[in-house]
Amino acid sequence: MAKKRILSGMRPTGKLHLGHYVGALENWIDLQNQYDSYHLIADYHVLTTDLSTEHIYDNTIEMVIDWLAAGLDPEKSPFFRQSQIKEHAELFLIFSMLITKARLERNPTLKEQVRDLNIENVIYGHLGYPVLQAADILLYKGEAVPVGEDQVPHIEITREIARRFNNQYGEVFPEPEPLLTSFARLPGLDGNAKMSKSMGNTILLSDEPDAVTAKLKKAVTDTMKVRKNDPGRPEVCLVFTYHKKFNSGEIENIDADCRSGALGCVECKSRCAAKINEFLEPIIEKRKHYERNIDLVKDILREGEEKAKVVARQTMDEVHTSMKFG
Amino acid sequence: MAKKRILSGMRPTGKLHLGHYVGALENWIDLQNQYDSYHLIADYHVLTTDLSTEHIYDNTIEMVIDWLAAGLDPEKSPFFRQSQIKEHAELFLIFSMLITKARLERNPTLKEQVRDLNIENVIYGHLGYPVLQAADILLYKGEAVPVGEDQVPHIEITREIARRFNNQYGEVFPEPEPLLTSFARLPGLDGNAKMSKSMGNTILLSDEPDAVTAKLKKAVTDTMKVRKNDPGRPEVCLVFTYHKKFNSGEIENIDADCRSGALGCVECKSRCAAKINEFLEPIIEKRKHYERNIDLVKDILREGEEKAKVVARQTMDEVHTSMKFG
Ligand code: SF4
Ligand code: SF4
Repeated sequence: MAKKRILSGMRPTGKLHLGHYVGALENWIDLQNQYDSYHLIADYHVLTTDLSTEHIYDNTIEMVIDWLAAGLDPEKSPFFRQSQIKEHAELFLIFSMLITKARLERNPTLKEQVRDLNIENVIYGHLGYPVLQAADILLYKGEAVPVGEDQVPHIEITREIARRFNNQYGEVFPEPEPLLTSFARLPGLDGNAKMSKSMGNTILLSDEPDAVTAKLKKAVTDTMKVRKNDPGRPEVCLVFTYHKKFNSGEIENIDADCRSGALGCVECKSRCAAKINEFLEPIIEKRKHYERNIDLVKDILREGEEKAKVVARQTMDEVHTSMKFG
Repeated sequence: MAKKRILSGMRPTGKLHLGHYVGALENWIDLQNQYDSYHLIADYHVLTTDLSTEHIYDNTIEMVIDWLAAGLDPEKSPFFRQSQIKEHAELFLIFSMLITKARLERNPTLKEQVRDLNIENVIYGHLGYPVLQAADILLYKGEAVPVGEDQVPHIEITREIARRFNNQYGEVFPEPEPLLTSFARLPGLDGNAKMSKSMGNTILLSDEPDAVTAKLKKAVTDTMKVRKNDPGRPEVCLVFTYHKKFNSGEIENIDADCRSGALGCVECKSRCAAKINEFLEPIIEKRKHYERNIDLVKDILREGEEKAKVVARQTMDEVHTSMKFG
């Protein structure tokens, strides 16, 4: 039986951090063996909230290097940029005729962004974000989309658009299912629930051991544990969540020793840093290989885009034929 | 000095009528000698108000035949379909990031359509109509757009988008000027102010003499002139407006004879039909030539699209370079 096709995407934000790994990449790497995966670099989506594109290409290359270094296999799953495949825009335009303004205004994610980013005047293209996402997914006839719970409303819009098109012009698109994956959120070094570049609380996939050790030293812990031998509460400690992720073999000991006061935070953090460095070592090594061979990275991207274009053109041919555009 | 470039477009509505000729074609034919003209067949725009595309290709071919028969010269001014040049959609997507939803909601033409067509829920792509129009114009770096007074607000949106893009990414686009032309409106056979297919009150450019004569026979005239010798009021008579357009040499006589009662409506209409047929004769003849050589029409369209694509690609390359998409 043919593998189901999935589409996952990320905005090109430059070098990735552990939050990206735990929140998405780790799942993608896992999924690429079970599914026919397509990996979108959503560079047009960036424009919905930030018009400055000065560094968009460099950020793309840095991200692709991290994808490769972390273990995404471009042979299994092509990487490609929205901006290089005109068919994304073409399908976006057609889909923009299949959904009302009111429906898009009800999108909860938009409402959240408007609130969080203090947006006074929504940009027309921002309102249409889920329409572009529908085009991204359906251009490759994605049958499933790995998403977190919060992204389910977007997938619902994609399904509605697919249904609307199929009813009007004939069966062309699947109705993609959300593939609910536990996208764990890794908290930031400052204790914030989310690791995020803009908050400066990240550990990059490309951070060298010294940098990781230094960052961990400054990480917040249980504020009640002031002196080395004070008893601590791992359940409120950020460093402990990192142990759970990167040092799972030792968490029972650490839990006990923290509570008893046998383990001090300095020692605990240094052990945590060591484990993270152990995890990052092969990634950094692969990263260096790609940094030295940047043309190889560009070739991989180009090849991914060629592969994606073949599928995209095929879909658009079907779309035009079913719409009888001649 | 190089000719200024203009962009004019029409939705592919099938066979054209005299209203199209007087309202647009006549001007275009005139302008093609003074300007570097591009003629867009706005097939995607049709979707903003009607999703059924069953006849869109046939309607396109019929319209192109009328364009050719009426005297548009594809050597001077390429004809091309929006749907065949992906760059229209690409630029639409980029431009959709440069304008707010609120700005588009203030568009008076949209408000009118919502009222006239009784639209309860505006379609997202319908709201974005002026954005697609901006893409249509600026893709060819149109410096002027022949429009009627009512279209000026749309051109203002195009100018705003061009300005916004140039400020953000560098000078790529001209700010097109509206080229205000007197788009006369030819009233319909039923006396309605507008000739329109949906009202069934049209004379087609392809109507044979018998059909024109029969249609004229049923045309409304001055309702006060009941009997042949009753005095009439040409200023309220539909047929008289046709005389003004197609029989300008005789209007003084007709005016006088109508008022005096010397001229009856039956006779007046038959003279009007004769003049319209005289005007249509060469158009119908050329039309038959193209109908017999339909492959020639398709070739003309294909060639126009090839020419347009060269310009469109060049512009999009500049757009991508200035946005540094890499
Ligand atoms: S010992 Fe470790 S787990 Fe306990 S509070 Fe300190 S850093 Fe956190
Ligand atoms: S005579 Fe001619 S102009 Fe006068 S009312 Fe009749 S149709 Fe009209």
